[in-house]
Amino acid sequence: MSKGNLLSVREDVRVLDATMRDGGLCNDFYFTDEFVRDLYHNNINAGVDYMEFGYKASKKVFSPDKFGKWKFCDDDDIRAIVGENDSPMKIAVMADVGRCDYKRDIRPKNESPVDMVRIATYIHTLPVAVDMIEHCHKMGYETAINIMAISKNRTEDLCAALDILGKTPVNVFYIVDSYGAFYPEQIRRFSQMYLEYAEKYGKQVGIHAHNNQSLAFGNTIDALQEGVSYLDCTVMGMGRGAGNCQSELLIGFLKNPKYNVEPILDQIGDHMTRLREEGVKWGFDIPYILTGQLNSHPRTAIEFINQGRTDYKTLRIDLLDLD
Amino acid sequence: MSKGNLLSVREDVRVLDATMRDGGLCNDFYFTDEFVRDLYHNNINAGVDYMEFGYKASKKVFSPDKFGKWKFCDDDDIRAIVGENDSPMKIAVMADVGRCDYKRDIRPKNESPVDMVRIATYIHTLPVAVDMIEHCHKMGYETAINIMAISKNRTEDLCAALDILGKTPVNVFYIVDSYGAFYPEQIRRFSQMYLEYAEKYGKQVGIHAHNNQSLAFGNTIDALQEGVSYLDCTVMGMGRGAGNCQSELLIGFLKNPKYNVEPILDQIGDHMTRLREEGVKWGFDIPYILTGQLNSHPRTAIEFINQGRTDYKTLRIDLLDLD
Repeated sequence: MSKGNLLSVREDVRVLDATMRDGGLCNDFYFTDEFVRDLYHNNINAGVDYMEFGYKASKKVFSPDKFGKWKFCDDDDIRAIVGENDSPMKIAVMADVGRCDYKRDIRPKNESPVDMVRIATYIHTLPVAVDMIEHCHKMGYETAINIMAISKNRTEDLCAALDILGKTPVNVFYIVDSYGAFYPEQIRRFSQMYLEYAEKYGKQVGIHAHNNQSLAFGNTIDALQEGVSYLDCTVMGMGRGAGNCQSELLIGFLKNPKYNVEPILDQIGDHMTRLREEGVKWGFDIPYILTGQLNSHPRTAIEFINQGRTDYKTLRIDLLDLD
Repeated sequence: MSKGNLLSVREDVRVLDATMRDGGLCNDFYFTDEFVRDLYHNNINAGVDYMEFGYKASKKVFSPDKFGKWKFCDDDDIRAIVGENDSPMKIAVMADVGRCDYKRDIRPKNESPVDMVRIATYIHTLPVAVDMIEHCHKMGYETAINIMAISKNRTEDLCAALDILGKTPVNVFYIVDSYGAFYPEQIRRFSQMYLEYAEKYGKQVGIHAHNNQSLAFGNTIDALQEGVSYLDCTVMGMGRGAGNCQSELLIGFLKNPKYNVEPILDQIGDHMTRLREEGVKWGFDIPYILTGQLNSHPRTAIEFINQGRTDYKTLRIDLLDLD
């Protein structure tokens, strides 16, 4: 794996924009077509390598009346935006174990504008994830595997999981910091561990960070320096709770001249500020620090914020009782 | 120098709260006595080692009609809050080269509640800074030296400066990221360099970070891991422009049981949220990312935000012209 310093161009780097997927969790996937079209073109102009449009969720599990279309990412809806996607940018969707009717909904790639399926799993649902990986590759897609909530898993179980996944056709192992609980020192250690299995089996490693402790960007570039190459980001960090590594930080940092932050600034000025004004809530805030520090799901913090509360000490005391 | 890992207690760590000093730049130092008294007690209960009350500015240079009293930090004003400061927490003030009438205003320590004077200088005003250090030590104070804007200096000049400072009685060399321009890799390198001179001359090293690129906390704990021990923070990151490393992140992170984040949460709930509502502006925002990425003074971004502008791309293009 290549590693680099601040002046290196790392040819293995792939930037993945997850604004509509992780950000969709903040507005139930109700993005206007204008938003999506602009994001698609701005991402292409910014040099983004993959754009994730949303989830491939089962309509039997989630009602299409209650969510915008990007919760389901029908091929036709993507095609209405991207046409034949005549661009160097690839299209990704996420499929959750247990929430995706993958044998029915993930059809052959030659009928679809999608290039990559990212499979999100907990460690205990790994066998289903493996079956999904195999199905997606049979259908002709690239895949990535995102093992979520690893801050609650044991290292030896994670190693066993990576060893199983190494034997599947999956392309990318993602380090996922679901709770925004990891410090740079830990991210560097996880990077080395994931890379060890990746090198053994010829895979790449990615990182998906959350910004609870204001470390999403820092952890992402620390992972990059260790040799991680798939880097998730979202415009203005839009994503559940504290949100993600911000595209404008990451793309402004990367040294490869193919990346250009200015189209991202356009997306912010033209759309993201308005979303915020319309009341869509996400991003770094005190309650998320507390769930991050205590390695806890952000849902408690989201509820606290929605209630307009500021008795942060009470929240912390309640969180200490949760585990 | 001791280094540590995530579970270490580092006995050399000193947390310095700079809320009123760097934060005072956002509200012209008009803090209510209630705010200051609560901050003083909350800091003591949080285990903070030093609390910086503000600047020791010359009343000949700055008019007391235009600034709150913490721009000047008269001993009597500090004493009205802290009495004889019967606590383990030390009191600090900052004195800027060229803006402090130090021979007149910095009086013998046995007449003052102040313990430490932090001297802020640019590299080209080092000789005055050295004279200030010597004066302060003659008066009986501890000192720290904060060389500002080092992202604009050459490494060899900085080494020469540290070598000169090593021969003075100064206690702490501060790494200061005035423009929020440094990445963790650079902060680790600066830490090693400052520590080399510190070890040679028996000094300590500190870090004062800015949050332009959402790296203030990450850079601070990376520096800590390298052996830096004086750590600046401010409550809710209050400080000029993008603000500083947040006390609630740092104190929640530190493992020494003397540190306790809950009093900081009280200060936030009781005061900081209200300051924001009253219109005091600070903290991470898109324009600061751009000045940070381009290693530029935040004043352009502050003005852009005060004008309510969101044409971020124009700002970036203008910034590229500035240098």
